[in-house]
Amino acid sequence: MYCFNNDYSEGAHPRILEAIKNASSDQHTGYSLDSHTEHAKALIKQAVHREDVDIHMLVGGTQTNMLVISAALRPHQAVIAAETGHINVHETGAVESTGHKVLTRQAADGKLTPALIQTTLDGHTDEHMVQPKMVYISNTTEIGTQYTLDELEALSRFCRQKGLYLFLDGARLGAALTSPVNDLTLADIARLVDVFYIGGTKNGALFGEALVIAHPGLKEDFRFMIKQKGAMLAKGFLLGIQFEELFQDDLFFQMAAYANQMAAILKEAFTDCGFPFFSDSATNQQFPILPNDLIAKLRESYQFQDQQAVDADHTAVRFVTSWATKEEAVRRFAQDLKRLA
Amino acid sequence: MYCFNNDYSEGAHPRILEAIKNASSDQHTGYSLDSHTEHAKALIKQAVHREDVDIHMLVGGTQTNMLVISAALRPHQAVIAAETGHINVHETGAVESTGHKVLTRQAADGKLTPALIQTTLDGHTDEHMVQPKMVYISNTTEIGTQYTLDELEALSRFCRQKGLYLFLDGARLGAALTSPVNDLTLADIARLVDVFYIGGTKNGALFGEALVIAHPGLKEDFRFMIKQKGAMLAKGFLLGIQFEELFQDDLFFQMAAYANQMAAILKEAFTDCGFPFFSDSATNQQFPILPNDLIAKLRESYQFQDQQAVDADHTAVRFVTSWATKEEAVRRFAQDLKRLA
Amino acid sequence: MYCFNNDYSEGAHPRILEAIKNASSDQHTGYSLDSHTEHAKALIKQAVHREDVDIHMLVGGTQTNMLVISAALRPHQAVIAAETGHINVHETGAVESTGHKVLTRQAADGKLTPALIQTTLDGHTDEHMVQPKMVYISNTTEIGTQYTLDELEALSRFCRQKGLYLFLDGARLGAALTSPVNDLTLADIARLVDVFYIGGTKNGALFGEALVIAHPGLKEDFRFMIKQKGAMLAKGFLLGIQFEELFQDDLFFQMAAYANQMAAILKEAFTDCGFPFFSDSATNQQFPILPNDLIAKLRESYQFQDQQAVDADHTAVRFVTSWATKEEAVRRFAQDLKRLA
Amino acid sequence: MYCFNNDYSEGAHPRILEAIKNASSDQHTGYSLDSHTEHAKALIKQAVHREDVDIHMLVGGTQTNMLVISAALRPHQAVIAAETGHINVHETGAVESTGHKVLTRQAADGKLTPALIQTTLDGHTDEHMVQPKMVYISNTTEIGTQYTLDELEALSRFCRQKGLYLFLDGARLGAALTSPVNDLTLADIARLVDVFYIGGTKNGALFGEALVIAHPGLKEDFRFMIKQKGAMLAKGFLLGIQFEELFQDDLFFQMAAYANQMAAILKEAFTDCGFPFFSDSATNQQFPILPNDLIAKLRESYQFQDQQAVDADHTAVRFVTSWATKEEAVRRFAQDLKRLA
Repeated sequence: MYCFNNDYSEGAHPRILEAIKNASSDQHTGYSLDSHTEHAKALIKQAVHREDVDIHMLVGGTQTNMLVISAALRPHQAVIAAETGHINVHETGAVESTGHKVLTRQAADGKLTPALIQTTLDGHTDEHMVQPKMVYISNTTEIGTQYTLDELEALSRFCRQKGLYLFLDGARLGAALTSPVNDLTLADIARLVDVFYIGGTKNGALFGEALVIAHPGLKEDFRFMIKQKGAMLAKGFLLGIQFEELFQDDLFFQMAAYANQMAAILKEAFTDCGFPFFSDSATNQQFPILPNDLIAKLRESYQFQDQQAVDADHTAVRFVTSWATKEEAVRRFAQDLKRLA
Repeated sequence: MYCFNNDYSEGAHPRILEAIKNASSDQHTGYSLDSHTEHAKALIKQAVHREDVDIHMLVGGTQTNMLVISAALRPHQAVIAAETGHINVHETGAVESTGHKVLTRQAADGKLTPALIQTTLDGHTDEHMVQPKMVYISNTTEIGTQYTLDELEALSRFCRQKGLYLFLDGARLGAALTSPVNDLTLADIARLVDVFYIGGTKNGALFGEALVIAHPGLKEDFRFMIKQKGAMLAKGFLLGIQFEELFQDDLFFQMAAYANQMAAILKEAFTDCGFPFFSDSATNQQFPILPNDLIAKLRESYQFQDQQAVDADHTAVRFVTSWATKEEAVRRFAQDLKRLA
Repeated sequence: MYCFNNDYSEGAHPRILEAIKNASSDQHTGYSLDSHTEHAKALIKQAVHREDVDIHMLVGGTQTNMLVISAALRPHQAVIAAETGHINVHETGAVESTGHKVLTRQAADGKLTPALIQTTLDGHTDEHMVQPKMVYISNTTEIGTQYTLDELEALSRFCRQKGLYLFLDGARLGAALTSPVNDLTLADIARLVDVFYIGGTKNGALFGEALVIAHPGLKEDFRFMIKQKGAMLAKGFLLGIQFEELFQDDLFFQMAAYANQMAAILKEAFTDCGFPFFSDSATNQQFPILPNDLIAKLRESYQFQDQQAVDADHTAVRFVTSWATKEEAVRRFAQDLKRLA
Repeated sequence: MYCFNNDYSEGAHPRILEAIKNASSDQHTGYSLDSHTEHAKALIKQAVHREDVDIHMLVGGTQTNMLVISAALRPHQAVIAAETGHINVHETGAVESTGHKVLTRQAADGKLTPALIQTTLDGHTDEHMVQPKMVYISNTTEIGTQYTLDELEALSRFCRQKGLYLFLDGARLGAALTSPVNDLTLADIARLVDVFYIGGTKNGALFGEALVIAHPGLKEDFRFMIKQKGAMLAKGFLLGIQFEELFQDDLFFQMAAYANQMAAILKEAFTDCGFPFFSDSATNQQFPILPNDLIAKLRESYQFQDQQAVDADHTAVRFVTSWATKEEAVRRFAQDLKRLA
């Protein structure tokens, strides 16, 4: 049985484990005030081409989303997201638990646009309604799609005009930035959005998201917020060591590119068999629409998740690859698919 | 420079790192639904002599405190703690951030008693005041003291009579249970309190607290709460692997006992020099009261924290040892102390 | 200029003002523990044909909605509402401010059905999503429609099967119960829903909503919740006096029936002129779709609100009548409409 | 039986009832956007000698406290109060329910000083603790004492130096400003504090507190907060009408002065009988310490509350007078006291 359920099934890249082991017997300052974290921050500042950002390293994505949103908004303010947005669907109301409404818009490809956001602004005009103040996007999106430079520039321009913070969830940012259709850089993102994070959990770290705060208004007292939400890791140096390893050369990008390549093999196999896709993804998540009987046969040897029923006989399913996905497993799957389809 | 600041300065016991490495390339189910976690839970159930408890593994202490308290209380209910309690002082209002008041009582030795709790109940009699519903204690306490079996039985009886949940923060439970003056077992605790946790972060794990829920009323839907507070680790198997290692033999207790032994050497040295203590601790935290000029000299070679000024010339300071504390460093410190004092 | 903006433009029915004046110099127990409130509760219990309900009198609707929902739900639970539901649109995120998500369903006529609710249940299956636990409906709805006995019985049966609390917002319950198409009684409602309220603010009181809690699980400690949310009126006897007056004879129903009659005159006028309606209302809110140039002319003499643009030249507008609406104003409006249309 | 329980036992001053009646059949704009409210705000601006303040009229004190504090603070920030402060003791954790810790200091006379506040600042130095950001005081305090001009100037200076908002709860501000020992004016208060309110509920209105926001940083979007917390009265004009009446001449001050005079008669009677006082109050709350057997005898004819047991045989009790207290009742009480003592 091989598992294509997600990109966090395995532990971590051997280099990361080795780095943790090597530093394990040293004494480190707690709570992310150690020298490894300092170094990792410097590396990330280089990578995003900005010295004036604040960087915080956190354990997980839901935690980071909740923290950023609750730190940025006053009590009556709301965040706008695509209906498929992770904060709307898969975080058990974490944002609402901090007091804020998530205003959603349907977006077929999981991506927000200025026009979609404007319709929400149009409907929120006085004090009887929440006040939209932040826009949440993810890249890649929850359905594997990604923003182009043009799209992100348009969003950035719009949000700045309207006084909205723009927040990019980068849990799978590596996959986006190394996809064959990508035209964005980390520096573009750091220039265009107010706050974003670089996901380690889904790209070869044991855990960890590096939050980059560019907007000065979002920086103040952020460590208080981290501590209050139970998100300040005592041994914060573990995060620093991992991001040091990810960014001291291009390990972060190598792993993501590899995951995308493995997914491309799957995509080609589905395409060759004539199966359509639920979304147009060039990244490490693929959403083919398959006949239910084929799905049942494939599940004798492979794990993968249902995304959504399409009709009585077909279901969109999700295949995810990672830095750890074995190429031989992918090749074998492609053969099995062609045999069974 | 040797650091006695805390018990989370180093990484993890080599056996724990090895176990993580060995399992790193396997594919695991996410979100703590994996087989290592299952096994670790079974081991902990054996250790606490109860099969009917629910166990959840979480990353850190503040997170765990916030989760337990906010999951247990209705909006108008409050938790009672010693004024020195971690939730009152050092969690940046995490409990209040979930909507609940912390009612505090001064307790010279950091320990609550039925009599102290009763005074709080006496002052909260109608709907114009919050309703006390949970009692929070820690063992060891924040100042290194610990509960005896008699004391815990009295608290347990009292809380059950009054309809109060009894919650024990065990961030340093290992130190308490292996102290020379301890007469409690894990099984006693699991029998006497409604919910508690076994701290890994401060006892040789990379991170991790094993929460044990004994009261049926506190079990329902707890995983929803974990996810909502951003506390559900994607690679939850990392927690399972660590607690497997801690409890498959007595590694958990060995490490804690060692930390206590190292602290006993420090304690003896302070005592030999005639210094009094801020609290009576037989565990891995020692709080000697030292002259300020001696403190300054010691700090040329050792790191340790101020606890509290005692008078113009003396300060209570905190020395913490751990599984990783080097005996030679402790011996050297004892010599330096005798030389400088 | 005559105002059809809403049903809370005027003060209160003269009998209510008189009753307050008559009791003003008496000394009353505070916080709704007075004898007038006691009497009003007894009258309402008679009116709903249940002695076993708990009754609380509150100042306003948003306050009442927020209180009921936040008192009923655990932190991870959510309330289901129609997209047009007042709690979703016009309460500035009051429900979310207490930590709970509002899950919405589109319902053309503003009414929820078991089928609509089931689709929400189908999409919320595990701990990565909020847990639906309450259904919020309003009668009349925000667009003037109302539930039939059959519909409410179906909802009630469904919610009980699924373990969902059913909550009816009755800010305009008087209008619903006295409409010509109504087949529900107060007793039916008290039998079929778990908690509801009888709106006074929009039906001739200075202010006041009488909350009726039927489900035993929702009763406990409710006064703590009232106080905590700043909703406990010091001079609570003012609420008791008003509801005494509303329910000691049928003043409550008389006023609502009168408001509906005034609305029926408007409805007839719009119908006679051939204008369609945005919703099918037999109650005190009417939503005709009018040409924009006619709207402009009418606004020279009458105030009323826009509901929603229908096309470039037509807008659905809202006319509201009340116990205080002057029949001569309604008649004059009907003439003006026919003249201008 | 005559009741000295509190200052909100009766309805409202006849002039206020008359004003409401006179305006009852007019049509008013909802939600405090009416002309009466506009006029009342203008009158209050005159009374406080500032045109640049924002004024909002709210229904009750707990509501106002919760609103001001939750609107002013970011999630990690806390408010400092005397241990006897209303927000700490008698609001069922309303402040905590919005996520904020109340940091308390013991103050024998119920009044905070710069020195007391400084001790709290000294103990809150980093991100592991909440960040003090607001100081809450009340005038009169909960035990009838009051601030002098010198004291308020010192507090104001201190808070501005430290970047703390200074908030004055004026639920009984009328009593303070008309007391014989007062040397403060409304204009002083508006100059020295950042936000305060003028209590109507306890001074002759049916209900109502006029919130005055002087600090620009506290003004933005306050109406959103009011609506979100369920505090926006649909018939807000009722608040405007009442404050118009209170401030169009000196009715507000007349009523408060009368209440103080009635209390002075009680105070003289207790003093004449040689009874000591729990606090030194020149206002409408008196706290004599009486023998328990005398208390029992007095309670055959009078209602009043226990404040606190002093020893086995004596209790501090609370007598409250108001605009509505009958002088003959006060005189009769004085005679009864002398007879029974």
